[in-house]
Amino acid sequence: MTWTVDVNSDLGEDFGIYKIGQDEDVITYISSANIACGYHAGDHNVMHHTVKLAVENNVGIGAHPGFQDLQGFGRRVMDVTPEDVYNMVVYQTSALQGFAALYGQDLQHVKPHGALYNMAAKDRSVADAVARAVLDASKGFGKVPGSGPVLYALAGSQLVKSGHYVGVKVVEEVFVDRTYEPDGTLTPRSKPGSVIKDINHGVIQAVRMVKDGLVTATDGTDISIQADTICVHGDGPHALQFVRELRKTFAELGINVQKPGGN
Amino acid sequence: MTWTVDVNSDLGEDFGIYKIGQDEDVITYISSANIACGYHAGDHNVMHHTVKLAVENNVGIGAHPGFQDLQGFGRRVMDVTPEDVYNMVVYQTSALQGFAALYGQDLQHVKPHGALYNMAAKDRSVADAVARAVLDASKGFGKVPGSGPVLYALAGSQLVKSGHYVGVKVVEEVFVDRTYEPDGTLTPRSKPGSVIKDINHGVIQAVRMVKDGLVTATDGTDISIQADTICVHGDGPHALQFVRELRKTFAELGINVQKPGGN
Amino acid sequence: MTWTVDVNSDLGEDFGIYKIGQDEDVITYISSANIACGYHAGDHNVMHHTVKLAVENNVGIGAHPGFQDLQGFGRRVMDVTPEDVYNMVVYQTSALQGFAALYGQDLQHVKPHGALYNMAAKDRSVADAVARAVLDASKGFGKVPGSGPVLYALAGSQLVKSGHYVGVKVVEEVFVDRTYEPDGTLTPRSKPGSVIKDINHGVIQAVRMVKDGLVTATDGTDISIQADTICVHGDGPHALQFVRELRKTFAELGINVQKPGGN
Amino acid sequence: MTWTVDVNSDLGEDFGIYKIGQDEDVITYISSANIACGYHAGDHNVMHHTVKLAVENNVGIGAHPGFQDLQGFGRRVMDVTPEDVYNMVVYQTSALQGFAALYGQDLQHVKPHGALYNMAAKDRSVADAVARAVLDASKGFGKVPGSGPVLYALAGSQLVKSGHYVGVKVVEEVFVDRTYEPDGTLTPRSKPGSVIKDINHGVIQAVRMVKDGLVTATDGTDISIQADTICVHGDGPHALQFVRELRKTFAELGINVQKPGGN
Repeated sequence: MTWTVDVNSDLGEDFGIYKIGQDEDVITYISSANIACGYHAGDHNVMHHTVKLAVENNVGIGAHPGFQDLQGFGRRVMDVTPEDVYNMVVYQTSALQGFAALYGQDLQHVKPHGALYNMAAKDRSVADAVARAVLDASKGFGKVPGSGPVLYALAGSQLVKSGHYVGVKVVEEVFVDRTYEPDGTLTPRSKPGSVIKDINHGVIQAVRMVKDGLVTATDGTDISIQADTICVHGDGPHALQFVRELRKTFAELGINVQKPGGN
Repeated sequence: MTWTVDVNSDLGEDFGIYKIGQDEDVITYISSANIACGYHAGDHNVMHHTVKLAVENNVGIGAHPGFQDLQGFGRRVMDVTPEDVYNMVVYQTSALQGFAALYGQDLQHVKPHGALYNMAAKDRSVADAVARAVLDASKGFGKVPGSGPVLYALAGSQLVKSGHYVGVKVVEEVFVDRTYEPDGTLTPRSKPGSVIKDINHGVIQAVRMVKDGLVTATDGTDISIQADTICVHGDGPHALQFVRELRKTFAELGINVQKPGGN
Repeated sequence: MTWTVDVNSDLGEDFGIYKIGQDEDVITYISSANIACGYHAGDHNVMHHTVKLAVENNVGIGAHPGFQDLQGFGRRVMDVTPEDVYNMVVYQTSALQGFAALYGQDLQHVKPHGALYNMAAKDRSVADAVARAVLDASKGFGKVPGSGPVLYALAGSQLVKSGHYVGVKVVEEVFVDRTYEPDGTLTPRSKPGSVIKDINHGVIQAVRMVKDGLVTATDGTDISIQADTICVHGDGPHALQFVRELRKTFAELGINVQKPGGN
Repeated sequence: MTWTVDVNSDLGEDFGIYKIGQDEDVITYISSANIACGYHAGDHNVMHHTVKLAVENNVGIGAHPGFQDLQGFGRRVMDVTPEDVYNMVVYQTSALQGFAALYGQDLQHVKPHGALYNMAAKDRSVADAVARAVLDASKGFGKVPGSGPVLYALAGSQLVKSGHYVGVKVVEEVFVDRTYEPDGTLTPRSKPGSVIKDINHGVIQAVRMVKDGLVTATDGTDISIQADTICVHGDGPHALQFVRELRKTFAELGINVQKPGGN
């Protein structure tokens, strides 16, 4: 028996002379890249470079729109209106699509970043605005009807519901290095033990989510989870080791890694 | 006998709570709008609003990319590389295309703004980078092959040459309220008399450029000029009066105002 | 019998070519100016110009620090840490002090702007950070010991308490054109009737706050309020008329308008 | 016989989550720190942290103002007016002074950054604006009269002349890892061999500049140079090794390293 899952990572987070992450290495272990779009990170030169890198590595190109808050890296919750969210997602997604089009490609997916991701996971007005923006923007991109970008959303979250509601294709995302609450939400980073540092532990959690659709929550109970794509991190000292170990284990267990659409 | 010319204006230059110009009025007198793309002016909400306004008024939608210098309104010369110019034009143009696509439209044209416009008029490396960016980005936009955006360039300038060289359609632009040097360049704003404040004088100059392809330079000699599109300004106290008078005179003399492609 | 009160207004909110407000006119009716410091509005050129204007009109110079969110004009709540608040207030306050020092002056006061003002009115950690920043920064400014800037805070709010707690001088602020809730807080702008548009009504409220220390809340009850300074607005079509009417009535009733320190 | 020289380095160039340089290590080898002020690098949190670091290491605190161009790290020439230069230097310098004052200190010096440094080295209107800004701002800082910040300027440049002209104290700066043209200017980075990569070579050049006031230009001739302060770099893989070697040789040869004022 075999299983299939997408592995994604946040790339293109450099800005000007500032370097972060190890994109050239990480990209060889993933099937999809979430590329920053100039608001919370990434400038137009970094975007072009990273899109090219994704094309060369046959990795799915995704927009990673966030708040226009470079100092806070888009991680600070801001009191934005749904209209503002809609327009910021259209703007950033379309800008990245422009670079993908240089290489004859369309965006594969859109994944909101940081505070926008977290807000869209819980707040319906934000989630609806993100989902509608992805749907509407995708009309302009997809040369083949229905080929527009899919929406990456936290597994089981409001954004998944909003995506289904507005009619955009949704891919549910799980995390290899984060723990889960009994209600299926991620343990907040402010709580101790929210981040899984032990690589073995993380890999085992990932395998179980993919194969069994289960994860053990912080209270010891098993909960169901839909693992269409796994997010791995590209920064930090152990990032590469983590993803390398994950891929090795996946290969041994017959878990195929491929883009959401397959190939 | 009849003549045809496009009339364009810079719109969408608001930012956040800051308002500038009289877009709702000006748009009723023009055939094409150059819409700021978030770098030197215009945020994503302003862009969406202005694109909608252009659609409602059947006005051609153009991207107006500039330097990322809000404080200087994109008017300050910056020492940028051709690669940087290429990427900033792809980025901004694609972002605006995203909003046009929401209404089922493609961009009609791209016109560089401010210092980028002036640099592209003289410096070949900048001009080539702008022209290539417009050509390359247009591949992603045009649903109908060859329908990509045209390039608006100062009449007779290096950017016209670069546009022809890289193979993008070029529309040559003249100004209703600026004087010309004997070599066909605009009189620099720093020189006295560079701006025509007398409406009558400006309208007469415009009519002659359109009908005869001639303009009287500052030394009194007549020079040839290609007037495919006329730029009128939307800000300042007399802007509306100016463009109203221009349209009235055009109507009396049988000069049709329409988008570059016609209609 | 006579009364004394300070009248303040937010000035220096232009940015680059963007103009807002009617500073040259408003400044003749006020005793203290809150000057934007480059984060939510105002660039270094606007700051210098506005400080000069305040000096020429013998108006108290105040820093008006806000969030670094030009698009949202500093009005959007952001999830900031107390350390971040402390440093952003030190930064902006010190930058404005630099311009005041060019004219041999020290800052008279500091008033947080927009979302920072509202958050500091309620949230103790934010309020303490603001108050400490004003106190600590003031050590560097005041050439005369104890002459450092005072803190302007919403009357009766947490920021008043925090100011007293850390030991900075506090001036309590009331609004001429806003209604009050029974608990003494401002009626949120989202509620109907939160803004007083009738000039007569506003002036009467102001007079009563100054003379009697009372204001009628939205439920009809009278509540106590400390009116050390009154905020008037400098933008909007009726701003000038409002402040002119206020000053006329104050003069008739023997209410003196002067800076917090007097003179 | 002994000699004395200041050794300075650019610190505090982090921004948000972006890290650059090795400030904690470099600061132990220098006597003066040039700290970015939020425009080309450094945010208010980074500034506070770096000022604290300088205080703890008894290193002179200097403002390092630059263009408001984070993407270009302040290295791109911009067409700015002298008034704009004056105000941007007052703004940034005053903001940093605010953090120094938290620790009871005044700024020791101001050194313009990147493109502003290079423009001020050649263009009199820019140089005069920088020098006047430092002089005028210093009036507000120096608790002891005449103790205001000194101006660091490229040895022999226009900025040295402008500093003397407006009456600010000037410290002439030389570079340990750059070659010099016969006219005393730095070899432009665009020319091959402009950067000295061999540590030995760089250290020998530095020693000779300090002891003999001479440097061998690219044409082999010796030219006079005033080496009051030596700039060492804190980023790059060999930065630490370079400055360590420099200090070791200085110690062996009896060259004392201390702040411009001494101590």
